[in-house]
This record gives sequence, C-alpha cells and structure tokens, in this order.
Amino acid sequence: MIQCPRGTRDFLPDEMERRRYYESILRRTAKIFGFREIATPIFEETELFIMRSGPNILNEIYAFKDKGDRDIALRPELTAPVMRMFVNGMSNEPRPLKLFYFGQCFRYERPQSGRYREFFQFGAELIGNANAEADAEAIALAASMIGALGLNEYKIRIGHVGVLRALLADAGVPSERSAEVLQKLDKKLYDEARVLFGSMNIADGVADGIFKITETVGGKEVLDLISEDAGSYLRELVDMLAAMNVNDVEIDLGVVRGLDYYTGMVFEAEAPSLGAEKQICGGGSYSLSELFGGEKVFSTGFAIGFDRILLAMEKEGQKFIGEGVDAYVVPVSDDVRTDAAKIVSMLRGAGISADIDIMRRKMAKAMKQASAVGARYAVIVGRNELNENSVTVRDMGTGDQKMVRLSELSAIFK
Amino acid sequence: MIQCPRGTRDFLPDEMERRRYYESILRRTAKIFGFREIATPIFEETELFIMRSGPNILNEIYAFKDKGDRDIALRPELTAPVMRMFVNGMSNEPRPLKLFYFGQCFRYERPQSGRYREFFQFGAELIGNANAEADAEAIALAASMIGALGLNEYKIRIGHVGVLRALLADAGVPSERSAEVLQKLDKKLYDEARVLFGSMNIADGVADGIFKITETVGGKEVLDLISEDAGSYLRELVDMLAAMNVNDVEIDLGVVRGLDYYTGMVFEAEAPSLGAEKQICGGGSYSLSELFGGEKVFSTGFAIGFDRILLAMEKEGQKFIGEGVDAYVVPVSDDVRTDAAKIVSMLRGAGISADIDIMRRKMAKAMKQASAVGARYAVIVGRNELNENSVTVRDMGTGDQKMVRLSELSAIFK
Repeated sequence: MIQCPRGTRDFLPDEMERRRYYESILRRTAKIFGFREIATPIFEETELFIMRSGPNILNEIYAFKDKGDRDIALRPELTAPVMRMFVNGMSNEPRPLKLFYFGQCFRYERPQSGRYREFFQFGAELIGNANAEADAEAIALAASMIGALGLNEYKIRIGHVGVLRALLADAGVPSERSAEVLQKLDKKLYDEARVLFGSMNIADGVADGIFKITETVGGKEVLDLISEDAGSYLRELVDMLAAMNVNDVEIDLGVVRGLDYYTGMVFEAEAPSLGAEKQICGGGSYSLSELFGGEKVFSTGFAIGFDRILLAMEKEGQKFIGEGVDAYVVPVSDDVRTDAAKIVSMLRGAGISADIDIMRRKMAKAMKQASAVGARYAVIVGRNELNENSVTVRDMGTGDQKMVRLSELSAIFK
Repeated sequence: MIQCPRGTRDFLPDEMERRRYYESILRRTAKIFGFREIATPIFEETELFIMRSGPNILNEIYAFKDKGDRDIALRPELTAPVMRMFVNGMSNEPRPLKLFYFGQCFRYERPQSGRYREFFQFGAELIGNANAEADAEAIALAASMIGALGLNEYKIRIGHVGVLRALLADAGVPSERSAEVLQKLDKKLYDEARVLFGSMNIADGVADGIFKITETVGGKEVLDLISEDAGSYLRELVDMLAAMNVNDVEIDLGVVRGLDYYTGMVFEAEAPSLGAEKQICGGGSYSLSELFGGEKVFSTGFAIGFDRILLAMEKEGQKFIGEGVDAYVVPVSDDVRTDAAKIVSMLRGAGISADIDIMRRKMAKAMKQASAVGARYAVIVGRNELNENSVTVRDMGTGDQKMVRLSELSAIFK
C-alpha cells in the first residue's frame, strides 16, 4: 500500500474544514490591514534560495534537475520568491506594497512534532520603507492574526540586529565572522560561542557581557542598556505599537535571526505550550531585492508557521465544529428517485447545502447516514406525500417530524 | 535577474484576488452539493502515478529522487492521490464519500495558451457506488460549478466507455491492444487508427462504422444506435440530470478518455472560445482503489481546469472588480502619527479594512496613494481637528469632504 511521503500529510475533511476556516481568518485579517494576496510557484530556480541563504541551504531543501537540466528547488520559504516577484514585475508600482501569501513550503529534515517536510506558511511583506510605522504595521498585523485565531498564550519578542552586530564589532569580531557568531547566539549555544570568541582572542569578560545582553528581556527600561540608535528606534516602535493596541510585546535583545539581510528590527512570536518547537512567527526589517538584481528597497516582513499555530491552539483545547449540511434528501422508494433529485436540486438552487442518498438505502440506514454527514434536517421523499406536493421533514437534532409543502420547503432552512 | 521557472506564473494582487474569488465560488458550490474538501501532498511516490497511467507518464512529469533516494514526483493530477488517501485512511468511513480538492498540479510539457507546467485543478470524487444517481450528482456538480462561475458558452458531452470497447471487441481488436486504438479515437486521429486496424486485419468498412460512431453527437435519440446496456443507462442518467435542471448536455459517443480505469459513463465539458485547448472539464465513473491495495470501489469524479476556465471567462469579456480598502488614513504632520495609528487600529478593530500612510507623504501624494489602493474614503488626521476629537473624511468617489467626530467614524463605513 502506498503511503504519503514521509513528513507530508493528507488532510481529511474535518481537519481540512478547520484549516480552511483558520486560513480564512488570517486572510480576512490581512485584508483589514490593507495587505493584498499574491502567489508564486511551488518551485523556483535553486539559485534564488542560495542567494538568500547561502549554499548550505542545499542540505535542507528539495533540489533537483528538471528535464531541461535546469536546477530547480521546492521553495523552503517565501520571502525570496516574493522579492524575486517584486523585482520582476512590481518594482514600478506605488509604494509601499503590502503583500501577503499562504502556501506550502518544503524542507528536507527529520519530521517531528509540529515539523513537517511539507508545511504551510502564512506571511506578509511590506515593501518600500524602513521606519517605525512600517515595522509597527507588520508587528501589529502579526499580533492581530494570532489574536484573531484565538490563541491565548503567546509572547511577541522584539529585538534589533544592530545591537549585537555593534557589540561584536566593538569586541573585535571581524565582520566576515560575525554571522557565524550570531548563529550561535541565536540558538543560545554559549559554549560554542565562547570557543569562537577564544579563537579571536576576545577576553572571557567581554564574551560574558555579550552573553548577558542576549539574555536581556523586559520592557522599555532595558533599552537603556544599548546604543542610542537602536534604543530610541525601538522606543518609538513600542510607542507606536501601544497606539495600535499591541501591548503584549517584550524587548528581547537576544532575538538575532541568523540571516545577513536583516537590517534593523527583528521579532519573533512563540507559543510556550509547544515546548522545544515553540516559535510560531518570525520576521523583521530587511533588504533583499538588490541581491536579485533590483534596486535596494527596505522591507519588513514575517511568516507565521500555520501548522504550528494550529497545534498550539489544539494544545490550548480549542475545538472547531464543522458546518455539516442543511439537508439530507432520502427517496423512500425507487419510483421517487427522480422527484428526490428535483427536490435536492431546488434546495441547492436556493443556496441550501443538501446531500442526497445515492446508495438506495433503507430508511434506518439513510437516517444514520444523515447523522454521519451532520445534516440539520432529513427530507424524506415518499409517493403519498408527493401526491400532496409535500415531503416529510425530520429535525435531526430533536427527532421531530412534520409534513411540509414543497413550496414552503426552502423557508425551513432560513 | 532570476525569473519564475518556465511554464510557471506569479500571481499579482489583482489577478490573485480574482482567482480567490472564483475559487471561493467553486468551493461554495461543492459544499452546497454536500462535498467536503480534502488535501494531499504536492508530491507523491512516483510509483503511484505509474500505477494509474503506465510508465509513459514519466515522460511528462517532474520525477526526481529525494535525499533518501526515494523516487518522488510532483503530482500531475489528483485522482490517484485522492484514491490513495481513501485506501490509506478513509476506507472504513460511511459511503459514499463526497470529496473535493483544489490545488496545483505539474506537467513537464511545452507551455502554450492555457497550458502551464504548474496549473490549478478543482476536482471532485464521489466514492462508493456506480449508478445513475452517483453519475448525475457528479455531472450536476460540474455543471453547477461552470454555471456559478458565469461562463456562458460551454458544452457538456456525455459518453460511455463500454460502447467503443464493445465495438472494438466485436471487430476483433485483441483486448490488450484496445487502449492503443482508443487513444487514437480519443484524439480523432482516424488515419493512425486505420493503420492500427489494418495491422489487425480489420476491414475498412468495419473501421468506418466505428469512426462513424465516434462522430455521433446528439440527444437521447442517438442512444438507439448503441447496445441496450449502455443506451438504457445513459437514458436513465439524462433523465436524472433533467430532473436536476441540467439540460445543456449532449450525448457524444466519441468521448473516450484514454485510461483503462474508467468503467462506464465518461464526460467532458468544453468552452469553444478556447480554440484548440478547449476542454475545461473531464471525468467519468471509474475503479482505481484496488490498484493501490484497497478493495474495489466504484467512484465517479471529474476535474476542472481552473486556469483554462478563467481564460474562457476572460475571452467572454467577464470583468472582475476588486474590493479595495474602506479607508486610507493620512497623518497630516509628524506629531499626529501616533494618533493616526490609533485611528487606523480602531477602524480595523471594527472590521473595517484600513490602510495607513507609512511613507510620510505630503497630502497630494497621499491622496494619489489612497486612489491607488482603491480606498472608498480617505481619513485625514490633523492636529486642529484632533483637538475637537474629529478627523476630515473625504469620499474618494465624489471628492466631498466633511468633519467627522471620532466616535462616529466607524459608522460611516456601514
């Protein structure tokens, strides 16, 4: 028996209805913020992802050659494709561009709880400016999305890549080795960072000072510890967020995000209920378009891990109840099957969701099926009732039955 | 500059909004018919598609090895994945299962008008029975979907695979060569079919009779030409469809559909406006689950080519108008930026879609941007007005302006 490939999933109807429902909440929230949806292909030239993330990305992605011997790869993320699309076809549009996307991404890694080889990301990119309003707009959208989904326990932590970059430069880390150190700090691998610092002849005391900064979390008061540039910027941002009713944020000077293209503010959201894989959202301000052959444009963006945030909602006990159908139409005998088809068609024409028995079941089994599909009413079509232009309608919740004239049938479902 | 890969597309905001709108119409129609959505992975084990279509499919698909040396392929269609999913996880569910899906499929072929390497299919599978009700349900759903989209010019043609299979057997075509001949007849390649018939020593007159049947199109009267089995079945089906208000169907004995797994009724829909690539929908009754290790279950399904049907609607001159945003908020000076953020946040909290200037534009340019994003109203935030708890609201359609108290602002957008 063929299974779906390792790390991928089939979504059955109940799960899929739940996913589409929450997807629609994210989409509606993005639209309310004036963001517009775009889509890019499932695969891209492999080079695009190497440009964004460096050649090591090849170890983690589905990269292959197509029949024309082109190097292509299933997208591992969507910021690079969106910026490629911006450079190709939107660079002359009025700015800012406020774009969002929803779709599958792919990483070849060991599957574990909340981590799949095919996973779904919802993300947004605000292209065109770097200032506190732009950053606030992006963070406020992320916070509104998480809130609109109904997740209760989450934390948004805001940092600034300039802080650690400046500290490393001051400590004497050569700029070409800065990314290497930042990646260790990002993962709080202090022992490994210490070895790196040692290899650069940086004193333990200086290293300790840097480690302490990466552990500094709190309100605006922690901004006193850092350089005036980053500090006053983050103060302005936090004030702007407060004006937008986004108060549940912390300053976290240890938020690093490994990639070179971040230019200033960076942020993450996490759901503590998820344990080790708790990050549900990450982003920041960046500049990437010039790597892809366009002019340099400042942007702010983020991505939400859709699978993980749904998992977090599940862990909080959130239940989702599907819609079911309004009517389940049952022909009592073979000679009324065509009439039953007319009736189901009339209901559907009125916008009423209606199923019909096609298994030629006996009444008891048909009622069981009506329950199985979550029908509100069963519409029982018999010859005698039809002779009076009527059908029997059974309320599947209460079990009550009554005769209803065909001309009045649709009205029951209002 | 990196482009999107050949045969794939970026969807910009206007186009994407149009696509999501029509996608939602298809989804709503499927739900009204009692179908439920499912999803399967973008790639599958390559073997799955070979089982369905034979090894020649390898010439047309994106097949590759993953890092674990597994043969995987981007899905070229969704019937096989859905039936695999049925066998894996749904075979004990009450029948019928009424499933639909929407997503990308991939074929490595020469791109041309309405034909892409990454394309979108909307499809439905009704799993559990083979009878006129099941087939009518599937065809009626396809017809309702096409109708709900608003396509005016289309034809639905219904045939039966038993008709030509029986004629070929009677003519002396060995069963193992039947598929080969049917594929020629499917494409109306009569010269090539004649060569095949010749190689089997089948007389030209017999071949001509078969060709004539494949050209027979019309109402129920053409069913007199064919075997009683298929004829009476299709009569019952057409009557059932008429009861469901689906009258725009023709019998077309030349509808073949190349694949072995079709068991009876087959149907296609085409949009003449599309010229050579005019097929927008195809399906039929089939049996496939036993190939994938499950029990034999009769099903009826179809797929709609989403890209092609949108192209047909475009050719008919259908226009789609996007929603735009309700409000565009403009801070007049730097000192009211935080207040403007509060106002945009208040509007959004009330479910009103609202954008805000983050480019610190002067008034005239900000009004231009308000037009560009399709705002209904501009909300102009100035210090003097704020001192009276008010803002200026400009109707972007008429150009009329008035002062509005903040407490009454949301009400304007009702």
